[in-house]
Amino acid sequence: MPERDLIRAFERILRVRSERVLLASGDDAAVVRAGGVAVTSVDAIVEGVHFELDTHSPGDVGHKALAASLSDLAAMGAEPGEAYVVLGTPASFGESRAIELVEAMESLAERSGVTIAGGDVIAAPALTVSVTVVGWAGGERDLTYRQGAEPGHLVGVTGALGGSMAGLLLLRGADADLDEAERDALLLRHRRPEPQLAVGAALTEAVVGAMIDVSDGIAADAGHIAERSGVSVEVRLGELPLAAGVEAVARAAGRDPLELAASGGDDYELLFTAAPDRRETVESTARAAGATVTWVGSVSAGAGVRLVGPDGRPVELSGYEHP
Amino acid sequence: MPERDLIRAFERILRVRSERVLLASGDDAAVVRAGGVAVTSVDAIVEGVHFELDTHSPGDVGHKALAASLSDLAAMGAEPGEAYVVLGTPASFGESRAIELVEAMESLAERSGVTIAGGDVIAAPALTVSVTVVGWAGGERDLTYRQGAEPGHLVGVTGALGGSMAGLLLLRGADADLDEAERDALLLRHRRPEPQLAVGAALTEAVVGAMIDVSDGIAADAGHIAERSGVSVEVRLGELPLAAGVEAVARAAGRDPLELAASGGDDYELLFTAAPDRRETVESTARAAGATVTWVGSVSAGAGVRLVGPDGRPVELSGYEHP
Repeated sequence: MPERDLIRAFERILRVRSERVLLASGDDAAVVRAGGVAVTSVDAIVEGVHFELDTHSPGDVGHKALAASLSDLAAMGAEPGEAYVVLGTPASFGESRAIELVEAMESLAERSGVTIAGGDVIAAPALTVSVTVVGWAGGERDLTYRQGAEPGHLVGVTGALGGSMAGLLLLRGADADLDEAERDALLLRHRRPEPQLAVGAALTEAVVGAMIDVSDGIAADAGHIAERSGVSVEVRLGELPLAAGVEAVARAAGRDPLELAASGGDDYELLFTAAPDRRETVESTARAAGATVTWVGSVSAGAGVRLVGPDGRPVELSGYEHP
Repeated sequence: MPERDLIRAFERILRVRSERVLLASGDDAAVVRAGGVAVTSVDAIVEGVHFELDTHSPGDVGHKALAASLSDLAAMGAEPGEAYVVLGTPASFGESRAIELVEAMESLAERSGVTIAGGDVIAAPALTVSVTVVGWAGGERDLTYRQGAEPGHLVGVTGALGGSMAGLLLLRGADADLDEAERDALLLRHRRPEPQLAVGAALTEAVVGAMIDVSDGIAADAGHIAERSGVSVEVRLGELPLAAGVEAVARAAGRDPLELAASGGDDYELLFTAAPDRRETVESTARAAGATVTWVGSVSAGAGVRLVGPDGRPVELSGYEHP
């Protein structure tokens, strides 16, 4: 199917869902009414590097590519706006799978209030999806950055960790004794992670100090906050909220569950810091946005991340894993 | 070289060149002060599809990827703003070539007043460069669209055509009798096309009707204007301004020079329509911005493109070529 026809097929799927979008396709560029500050992030995923088509459906791939970008907007507390997509497909991929991919992307866009306002379709040796997302905020003070952590802050995380990595281990054949619902939830967490847009916006309003999405694993992402903020971040592994089934999958794969939860990426939960006197405000704000908060550490003067095991001893991770 | 180190190397090369850019790297997203309308376009090029590394240096590739996107902003008459780049490289590509690619991109960004404000570096089976550019304008009326052509308008084009395609034919071994300077100019036009940003902005101020950049070849691009404007566009091939050497290269390759100029893409000149009473204003405005204008056709009621040969007879092209 010629690229031009595929673009037409996509245009029939995609909807404009904001009055901000003045021109979404058919010209040299999209035109969007702008104001305040634009918050922009790009992400790309490639078959054989970030996913395999024998474990991910075309819809999973489309979802994952957009979700990864939107998760960056969530981590800034920006209002999601527009997405621009480059889809690179091998000739063997075919029209129906390309449409399935874009439909899943549009479905996430709809839930997130996002308009896919432009894009390009090209031939490529491996399936490649590159997504640029633009979010909006009134001004730069209405966002949360990695650099806002201060000594004395508490470290919190939303939701549960390790689910995406456990889902990947299941796909790779880990033989864990799980009930069907737990298994499905872990696979879903790996294949269709949800960006925490409402929670990120709510936490920003609750004036958290620093925030980042958990994409490289909480240990590495705590390191990004520490580096940008010029502080030391302590994370107590024994406090980490593990997703249901993570422990069983980790043991089946011969892994330590806490280390897996600390190093496994792509959970797309939010890791943040907050002054102790904001503890209850943060908890109730997150709850109202549909998320639980677990306090897992603290910020002090210094540099880098200190991981502390349940026995109180320091833990070294060999690296981070990016499913 | 780990992707993280390569990103650091790129951050040392890239410069912020607008006060609009509040945060360019190191966080989850870039933050840019916004206003008026944002004009956004995405383009991607892939090794083996859009270029070959035995004819294009890494710098050519970086230049070409950014130039293609900026040309879309030129065609809208938008002020160039920020670029976001996803660089996908095979392991064999290596650090020094990746840096050469980004340096060429930064060099074009500097000439264009653009800040490369964010990006991503990933592993990919073939060299892939995906670029999102954002331009700015006061409002949607301060831009020129493909849809503004009206019956009675003249059709004009900037600069000279066929150069990129002739350069490609030379790279593929066409044996034309050219002097060194002509040959170099054709190769340069193919490898390092310049987006006509100043000219596009000037033509927009001179109130041209419709505008598009010549990326698919003037015949196909006139078709895009005809379709979006709901008009018929006539292009007289005998009037097309051929780049020096195009005729010799076309003949050496057994091709008709006018058809080559009409169907060969990636010249990144601007094709536009204007009311006859604006003819002199358009010419003097373009001249002030450093471009010549050639009038090559006219707009009438109807649909589609009519190509007319030097003998006054209709010409059919077999398709368009995208080098």
